[in-house]
Amino acid sequence: MTKYILSDRPFREEFQANMQAINKEYQFVLAEDLAEKDWTDIEITLGWKKAWNKKLLHDNTSLKWVQSISAGVDYLPLDEFRKYNILLTNASGVHAQSIADHLIAVLLMQSRGILSAIKNQSDAKWQASDNYSLLSDLRILIVGTGKIGQQLASYLNTFDNQPIGINTSGHAVKNFAETFSLKELFKKAAKADVIINILPLTEDTYHLYNTAFFENMKPSASFINVGRGGSVASDDLYQALKNKVIAFAAIDVFEKEPLPSDDPFWQLDNILITPHISGFTPHFQKRFMEIFLNNLASFNQEQKVTVNQVSLDSGY
Amino acid sequence: MTKYILSDRPFREEFQANMQAINKEYQFVLAEDLAEKDWTDIEITLGWKKAWNKKLLHDNTSLKWVQSISAGVDYLPLDEFRKYNILLTNASGVHAQSIADHLIAVLLMQSRGILSAIKNQSDAKWQASDNYSLLSDLRILIVGTGKIGQQLASYLNTFDNQPIGINTSGHAVKNFAETFSLKELFKKAAKADVIINILPLTEDTYHLYNTAFFENMKPSASFINVGRGGSVASDDLYQALKNKVIAFAAIDVFEKEPLPSDDPFWQLDNILITPHISGFTPHFQKRFMEIFLNNLASFNQEQKVTVNQVSLDSGY
Repeated sequence: MTKYILSDRPFREEFQANMQAINKEYQFVLAEDLAEKDWTDIEITLGWKKAWNKKLLHDNTSLKWVQSISAGVDYLPLDEFRKYNILLTNASGVHAQSIADHLIAVLLMQSRGILSAIKNQSDAKWQASDNYSLLSDLRILIVGTGKIGQQLASYLNTFDNQPIGINTSGHAVKNFAETFSLKELFKKAAKADVIINILPLTEDTYHLYNTAFFENMKPSASFINVGRGGSVASDDLYQALKNKVIAFAAIDVFEKEPLPSDDPFWQLDNILITPHISGFTPHFQKRFMEIFLNNLASFNQEQKVTVNQVSLDSGY
Repeated sequence: MTKYILSDRPFREEFQANMQAINKEYQFVLAEDLAEKDWTDIEITLGWKKAWNKKLLHDNTSLKWVQSISAGVDYLPLDEFRKYNILLTNASGVHAQSIADHLIAVLLMQSRGILSAIKNQSDAKWQASDNYSLLSDLRILIVGTGKIGQQLASYLNTFDNQPIGINTSGHAVKNFAETFSLKELFKKAAKADVIINILPLTEDTYHLYNTAFFENMKPSASFINVGRGGSVASDDLYQALKNKVIAFAAIDVFEKEPLPSDDPFWQLDNILITPHISGFTPHFQKRFMEIFLNNLASFNQEQKVTVNQVSLDSGY
């Protein structure tokens, strides 16, 4: 009997062959190629589309496992997955190197005066910034010490920086000088030169970064977000930047994406706006498939996954 | 008898005290504080100004040693130093970390699509580049394997890149996958995705990068110069960029600095212009003094220097 693996995007044929090598009943399929009657034979999805909610989330569903394309799963119908006993795995790790590369780029561009040079270039102005720093002299607070945070910390060590980490429990993590629990975030943020958010979006992290948070930061400090837009109260960040409550922000994820062309953020001169690109990697398919095929083998054997399972209670 | 150490810029008092600790006859002085009669008692200079040529370069000079502020010494009167038997040391190493940081910033900005995002930001446009690469997938050719090149290669290793090096003789250097002699530059450059010039300016490197060089590069490749402006034939680079003979350049040093505001380079959209900032470091004084004081101790003892001596014949 055919078991469909429904995907929200194409994958290279070699990976489709790998799925069938595990069990030849597995059949990779895109929604547009699926006959109406076959929706009852979908066992697994790669990614998710809202249009699938009705078709796949009901009492008679054959769906057993959703493999998210992203690391964050906040946009998925977690309550319904729980209700229908659907396994959820994420793509944590796939984007870690790209996001860490992006963050090192942002940190160095700013500390080396390159952002300021780019602004002057557009005015044909040869004028150096008078503000340079070494990463080794900055107190960098990384909020979220998962795969991305660990890759970033490892890079920072190369630049003689030992970052401070924040995670749920405050457990120690390699390459960090110290780690503290989320309860200590405000206290530690008050002393940081750079604060980098990489947390998933959950009830606990929604609008975690708000006016109270920004007012608690050093006026000379920078805020960087590559986690989720919803962790930041957008209006509060806008006001904090406009009124120089904080010096600079580099934001890759926004509450509303794409950021509308009339959004006031575009008018600020102390923000770097990147269009949710930090996770883009030329090797997405290969890395994603490493995780998925690994799990597919054990799922095929014993209906279990071995890596990247998401707790439907905590949301990460 | 007072022996003056004439400097082209102020240094912190702690360093002046360190000079006197070596020999209390050493007296740190700025040109504007020096009486006319005391020019005959200058033994050492820190840096150089053209106005000093006449006063210090003659048959009866007391000058014995010039400590350059920079790593490159092409702007100094080397022939006259040779004629009057004046020792020359450079500041090689002082700027290595800053320049390597600058280069990693430039490489990552480009490979992560951030330069393109910055352009779109100025148009309030949320649009991702469709071109991402990992440093590990790029063939990077580093022309010059001295302290800067070595620091850069070490950073690149962290990003899983093993660069190829070019130096005078082709001798092996740590952290490089392979190294070749300057004679093989063209052959190796033809295959590189990124070519980074860090060479000093000498007769051999003047206009080394010219139309023939750029036409030999891959059309998709980038050229980066943090060495000396004179190594590049400016007009040739301009034409290569304008006509897309090469894809991109990041240029920190120009033949004419400051780059005039009506220079056509400013109008190109495939160049990053930085105003000779790659060597700026907040720790300049400390690192420079480490080199100088080390040499001053041995100079005081036996009229010799132990590190960073420049060959007046080769010019580096």
